[in-house]
Amino acid sequence: MPDLQSEMKRVKSRVDELILSELLPESSPVREVDLLYNMMRDYPARPAKGMRPFLCVTTCRAAGGTEESALLTAACIELFQHWILIHDDIEDGSELRRGEPSLHRKYGDALALNAGDALHARMWGALLLNQKTLGADATLRIMGEFSRMVNETTEGQHMELGWVRSRRWDLGEKDYFEMCTKKTSWYTVATPCRLGATVAGASSEVLDAVQNFGVKLGVAFQIQDDALNLVGDQKKYGKATSDDILEGKRTLILLHLLETVTPTERSKLTEIMNKDRGSKSSDDLSYVLSLIESSDAVGYARKIATGLMNEALGSLRSVQWPGDKGAASLLESFARFAVEREW
Amino acid sequence: MPDLQSEMKRVKSRVDELILSELLPESSPVREVDLLYNMMRDYPARPAKGMRPFLCVTTCRAAGGTEESALLTAACIELFQHWILIHDDIEDGSELRRGEPSLHRKYGDALALNAGDALHARMWGALLLNQKTLGADATLRIMGEFSRMVNETTEGQHMELGWVRSRRWDLGEKDYFEMCTKKTSWYTVATPCRLGATVAGASSEVLDAVQNFGVKLGVAFQIQDDALNLVGDQKKYGKATSDDILEGKRTLILLHLLETVTPTERSKLTEIMNKDRGSKSSDDLSYVLSLIESSDAVGYARKIATGLMNEALGSLRSVQWPGDKGAASLLESFARFAVEREW
Repeated sequence: MPDLQSEMKRVKSRVDELILSELLPESSPVREVDLLYNMMRDYPARPAKGMRPFLCVTTCRAAGGTEESALLTAACIELFQHWILIHDDIEDGSELRRGEPSLHRKYGDALALNAGDALHARMWGALLLNQKTLGADATLRIMGEFSRMVNETTEGQHMELGWVRSRRWDLGEKDYFEMCTKKTSWYTVATPCRLGATVAGASSEVLDAVQNFGVKLGVAFQIQDDALNLVGDQKKYGKATSDDILEGKRTLILLHLLETVTPTERSKLTEIMNKDRGSKSSDDLSYVLSLIESSDAVGYARKIATGLMNEALGSLRSVQWPGDKGAASLLESFARFAVEREW
Repeated sequence: MPDLQSEMKRVKSRVDELILSELLPESSPVREVDLLYNMMRDYPARPAKGMRPFLCVTTCRAAGGTEESALLTAACIELFQHWILIHDDIEDGSELRRGEPSLHRKYGDALALNAGDALHARMWGALLLNQKTLGADATLRIMGEFSRMVNETTEGQHMELGWVRSRRWDLGEKDYFEMCTKKTSWYTVATPCRLGATVAGASSEVLDAVQNFGVKLGVAFQIQDDALNLVGDQKKYGKATSDDILEGKRTLILLHLLETVTPTERSKLTEIMNKDRGSKSSDDLSYVLSLIESSDAVGYARKIATGLMNEALGSLRSVQWPGDKGAASLLESFARFAVEREW
């Protein structure tokens, strides 16, 4: 049986080939438009894990479908990831994406914002191509899944940005879970798995089970991402570490830390976190990092992530897979990878 | 026969009702998400002409379909207009939209960008609702029209922004027409008319004819918009006048002016136009406006617009309308309005 990493790599390269050779335009007779096309191909050409297409294709196989039938849909999830990252990077003021300058750093906010919209529209256009092989009804069902996914993701992104903007700190773990489910779980795990199952024509029981799996595992994945952002190796991770502190993000680690520190520390912490990105000094950053290091906040959050992963595995194991058992077992390996990864 | 203004108003109010009561969410159990929903409802609740839904519904009736069958699609064109204006206002740094502060002025760039994405996704979600009344195939054909429309519009927006960014002035009327066709014609006239005809099940001859009508009239519409931006009454117009000069836009008026002025004036003009929005002084603005006033540039552009309108009318009159003749005649009234309007 192929291992998880080589499978993710294999599926990712098939999906990238489809995106770059067939789904995205390469050149235009209009000179200026060529630059737009280059911008649209920029993030897709950067290295990435390709978790979402892997989950779509592998769930489809486990549920009794073929890899071929899910490949276009898997490519569209990857297109979603590309356009929303372009916009997220603008919203968060992120400098780096996958080890290189973010798109708006290279071309300015206005052109990058527009290129994200162009890529967003190409995603819907590509979904229409499912008609040829899956027929009209399945094509529309798949688009319905995408519609839900974008709704959830934009609501989650709004919650996170809104908390920073309104300087809200009266937040508990429940709020974090709710935000993460919307911001991360749907597009990272729940929808990719639901899409694979939909392409395979799975029952509503299977759809429900993979959705539960995805919602839980997505939060666990995000907790691990938050931890890597603080204590990860920037070279492996590919994004600037400590960015979440600079952006004032309400991570589970930070919310837990706030509950365990003294009132004086709490007030200094929130004061620092409330500052604009540009106003945070290196002393501010060191102060927050040292409090995190001397607390058990990262360890605490990782324990929660492991618990969520186990609940996710429970949902997965409740399914009687009609298809490829090796594929079902790869989904279990993925669950462990989501919380143990270093990148 | 009802006149054009009352018909546009009537259709617009039906479409607004559909958008605000059925297509957009009103409140969420999650406190932060309520703000997102309010932001999504902000532009839809502001007064606007409603030209695009009018064109969709009226073309459908002229082509033998019913108003009811095209209403949801017409509402989705209006949703398109709302989300792309949110993003355009960020890209252009526009302060005013429909007489009020633009969305990013009210809530900041990050939340406004995300609200635009959320509204974009709601547009595709709403298009899926056509299945109930029009069936799967027509629903997918309509989505194909939307896909083309967003591709063209983002390419046109990129051309305009790209010219400013790369300080290109080696542009002629052909470049302007190409940019305007993409930026304005498709989403303002060509696609709304094609959609109405598609809902009515019109022949490919009718689709081609209304597309020609739309491409020509859309450019004429944009020329009039450029003129109003310079010499219009801000109260009627609803946007800040002279914004195009501040944004460095390559309008037909400006391109023509550049051909008629002395080399010294040309060099001073491009120097001013190349400055960032914030670096343009009121003297700079007065200089550009006085050159425009003392030239025939606005009159010249309006003549071109009238010529394009007549070509557009020629395409329209080539159609043997199988449906409502009054509706067909309203489309002719609209063509005249597009170039004669003061708002």
